[in-house]
Amino acid sequence: MRLGALGGAGVAYAAMGVLGVEAMAAASGTPPALPGDLGRGRSVVILGGGIAGLVVAYELERAGFAVTLLEGRSRLGGRNWTLRGGDKVEMEGEATQTVGFGEGLYLNAGPARIPSHHEGLLGYCRRLGVPLEVEINVSRSAYLWSEGGRPLQMRQGINDTRGHIAELLAKAVNRGALDADLTLEDREKLLPFLKAYGDLTDDYSFLGTERSGFEQVPGAADQFARARKPVPLKDLLANPQLRATLFEDNINMQATMFQPVGGMDRIVAGFERALRSPVMLNAEVTGITRKAEGVAVAWRDAGGASRLTEADFAVITIPLALLAKIPANFEAPVAAAVASVPNAFSNKIGFDAPRFWEKEQIYGGISWVGGDTSLIWYPSNDLHSERGMLLACYGSGPAAKAFAARPLSEQIAAARAAVGRVHPGQEANLAAPVVVNWSKVPFSMGPWPDWYGQAGQEGHMDSPAYRLLNQPHGPIHFAGAHLSQTPGWQEGAVLSAHRTIAALAAQVRAQDLVRPAA
Amino acid sequence: MRLGALGGAGVAYAAMGVLGVEAMAAASGTPPALPGDLGRGRSVVILGGGIAGLVVAYELERAGFAVTLLEGRSRLGGRNWTLRGGDKVEMEGEATQTVGFGEGLYLNAGPARIPSHHEGLLGYCRRLGVPLEVEINVSRSAYLWSEGGRPLQMRQGINDTRGHIAELLAKAVNRGALDADLTLEDREKLLPFLKAYGDLTDDYSFLGTERSGFEQVPGAADQFARARKPVPLKDLLANPQLRATLFEDNINMQATMFQPVGGMDRIVAGFERALRSPVMLNAEVTGITRKAEGVAVAWRDAGGASRLTEADFAVITIPLALLAKIPANFEAPVAAAVASVPNAFSNKIGFDAPRFWEKEQIYGGISWVGGDTSLIWYPSNDLHSERGMLLACYGSGPAAKAFAARPLSEQIAAARAAVGRVHPGQEANLAAPVVVNWSKVPFSMGPWPDWYGQAGQEGHMDSPAYRLLNQPHGPIHFAGAHLSQTPGWQEGAVLSAHRTIAALAAQVRAQDLVRPAA
Repeated sequence: MRLGALGGAGVAYAAMGVLGVEAMAAASGTPPALPGDLGRGRSVVILGGGIAGLVVAYELERAGFAVTLLEGRSRLGGRNWTLRGGDKVEMEGEATQTVGFGEGLYLNAGPARIPSHHEGLLGYCRRLGVPLEVEINVSRSAYLWSEGGRPLQMRQGINDTRGHIAELLAKAVNRGALDADLTLEDREKLLPFLKAYGDLTDDYSFLGTERSGFEQVPGAADQFARARKPVPLKDLLANPQLRATLFEDNINMQATMFQPVGGMDRIVAGFERALRSPVMLNAEVTGITRKAEGVAVAWRDAGGASRLTEADFAVITIPLALLAKIPANFEAPVAAAVASVPNAFSNKIGFDAPRFWEKEQIYGGISWVGGDTSLIWYPSNDLHSERGMLLACYGSGPAAKAFAARPLSEQIAAARAAVGRVHPGQEANLAAPVVVNWSKVPFSMGPWPDWYGQAGQEGHMDSPAYRLLNQPHGPIHFAGAHLSQTPGWQEGAVLSAHRTIAALAAQVRAQDLVRPAA
Repeated sequence: MRLGALGGAGVAYAAMGVLGVEAMAAASGTPPALPGDLGRGRSVVILGGGIAGLVVAYELERAGFAVTLLEGRSRLGGRNWTLRGGDKVEMEGEATQTVGFGEGLYLNAGPARIPSHHEGLLGYCRRLGVPLEVEINVSRSAYLWSEGGRPLQMRQGINDTRGHIAELLAKAVNRGALDADLTLEDREKLLPFLKAYGDLTDDYSFLGTERSGFEQVPGAADQFARARKPVPLKDLLANPQLRATLFEDNINMQATMFQPVGGMDRIVAGFERALRSPVMLNAEVTGITRKAEGVAVAWRDAGGASRLTEADFAVITIPLALLAKIPANFEAPVAAAVASVPNAFSNKIGFDAPRFWEKEQIYGGISWVGGDTSLIWYPSNDLHSERGMLLACYGSGPAAKAFAARPLSEQIAAARAAVGRVHPGQEANLAAPVVVNWSKVPFSMGPWPDWYGQAGQEGHMDSPAYRLLNQPHGPIHFAGAHLSQTPGWQEGAVLSAHRTIAALAAQVRAQDLVRPAA
């Protein structure tokens, strides 16, 4: 069996036969091609209606399975969550926040961008008719802020750094310091390239470049352009945000990036339009029982009544740290694996603000401010309109834990102050703050698992627990971005869902060998 | 008198008094602030309805002048020209082309992008209510093509080059080759930065980077990511398009870039909506006479009838090479200056095509192919739709002259072949070709003047002719991008128009000193 190739990325797919496990040699964005009657007479209960659960539901119902989707929240999407004026933000231990954004403004509290190579997710956007627009990840007019220094414009950080590096390397080459590493021909080609690379003078000096911006813009007549003076290398290196000049070349951050028009949850809305299977919202799972054949899932419905759903298979996408609290008769190693993975921390804070940044020639992109709030992320949509949603904090990692422990008012004050440092005086114009501490959000209690404590080699997500949970546990399958190599990306959820669907299909085929359908 | 500051860019503006010349110390996007009755009882005829003429008309009618705008073509906009299905392209010496693009597709035959710092033009977009969207100038998935080599993806060209450069510089630093240039503290800060810069190993070796793309994408479970192998520096330097990795840092090409939604001529439509003054289309100027007081302009109307428009002032935005052919009683140095500037050459070729590039993860941006056709520029709008306008040639400079001299069919074949080299087999899917050789377009006869033959110092546009034409010739003023420091950009037209308006206003004020209005 071979799946079709999408976008030049082929995928090899080999049936391994009797044990019902099929190995996918490589991930691609193409969902497993399943016959429409594969699931005839078989049922699947899906626990959790985030992107992984939605993909599993969408694909399996197309393959003829009787699908039931249980979702604990009052909405689908999981971490794909878009906040608009009037929405409530409930967090454990905090008073409910009511979003006060003006009309048309929204905050993607979870994922907020999609790279061009996330073909799995982009494929669903295409199939579900979700219009996309460009997410502007980089504006050369945004800033790198450093304590005590003047905010450095991104264009100057990038181009002055490149100028100094090109100058230094040209000096070393001209001094013969790299003769052992470069042939004469290499050197003869490298030097003119370095001149172009750094915008150096004919004698390979870096004296500044228009690439870094103008002290005076080119006008008419004798209004000649004048480039900014270069920032000395020493000062560039002293700016702790200088490495953010490399952000745009993080493979997941490279142009072209996308966002759905109107909010990330337009993807969820696309799945909702497409799904025909029963979807139970406010369905809180209270027990998972693996039976002799199939699975029984106990849950509490919106009215508090106890319900039971039985099915031939279960696909569990619930975050592991929450799943660990649900009574289940998993075998001990599985239960231990589930319990072994704590959640990480991540915080976002958004404001409704007049578009003062556009008066500074910033249209989308990110200013890097360091500290707990990390960044100021400007909106990519509705350019030149009056107001926009300004994301004034997106912090993750260990520091995010301590930040989330502070009162919301202090978190807001910190975000406001960071904006004021980069845009003096504008902190007063930030309205309608909303704080999302993912570690307090019910049914998530974290942005993604903290696998790093048990990370594998070469930076891959890998550990015995990770490997075990990526195997079927009888009729029970686990899926979700947390079981992928990209736990913080929706693409991880899609690819995990695809792999799980393939494994489940393989089990069905193995069963059919033993017990052919009527 | 001081103009307001816009976008942090202040502008100093000093009246120079009796001679009626005001010097603008620096250009900014802010139009001169003129009293609404400044032009009361005074008339201006504007020759040419491109962006410069439109700005002059818009501003002067708001300042109370009686404005008449004469435009030779059957449309306003000049080089701001958007082609859609059914449009006719007439070029001297060629059969008329009828654009065959499908609905919704368009080709911006002239300017096609706006940088964030072109505040003059962006200001009119805002004031005139012209919706903008992101113009994607860079896609990391696009290609650098080289004869004989495999097309190199932009992400690999950028990041492998940076990796090698960082490795080489780290070697030189570690060998002490730059001890005379860098303090110990500099070196101690530079080395870890270089490690991050090039994604080097702990011993400062460059062994490849995920930034350059995946050989295998990160999937679920044990579908671990595998980065591409690095391209050797020698091979990178052998690629003649490698310098196109720097294109994104050309100051006029830096993110964020814009395009008006629906075509560049939506800006022209915005001016048309706003203008109240008479606009004469198909008005071919046949003579310009400077009189004792004021100006007389003879022109031929759409029906072929001779007409005469007299006014107190004239603003001439006609390209100099065409103006040189119109009878005029300019003083000899002015006439000589007008005649001294030949036009340059530029060509564009567009096709209606299925979006095969999006299947290669290219969404907008540019592949660089070298040769006569130079690039393949992918559309930034309507991502994920069925078809798009593919620009498969945008060549300027000396080679563009010879290319334009070839039959249109050969030009189209060359563009088609270049697409086929980067996207094998797709050349057959390119439909509805349209060729624009600007050197043959009536009323333009070139994309911009070739000032470079008389270029001033330090790369500025500057020459005696340029300086002379940037002065009022009595009641006659010249304006246009060709009299700015950015002849190939609409911003040049806006800033030249602003400067001309200020000079004309100064003349009016000087006249009022001598002969106060009633």
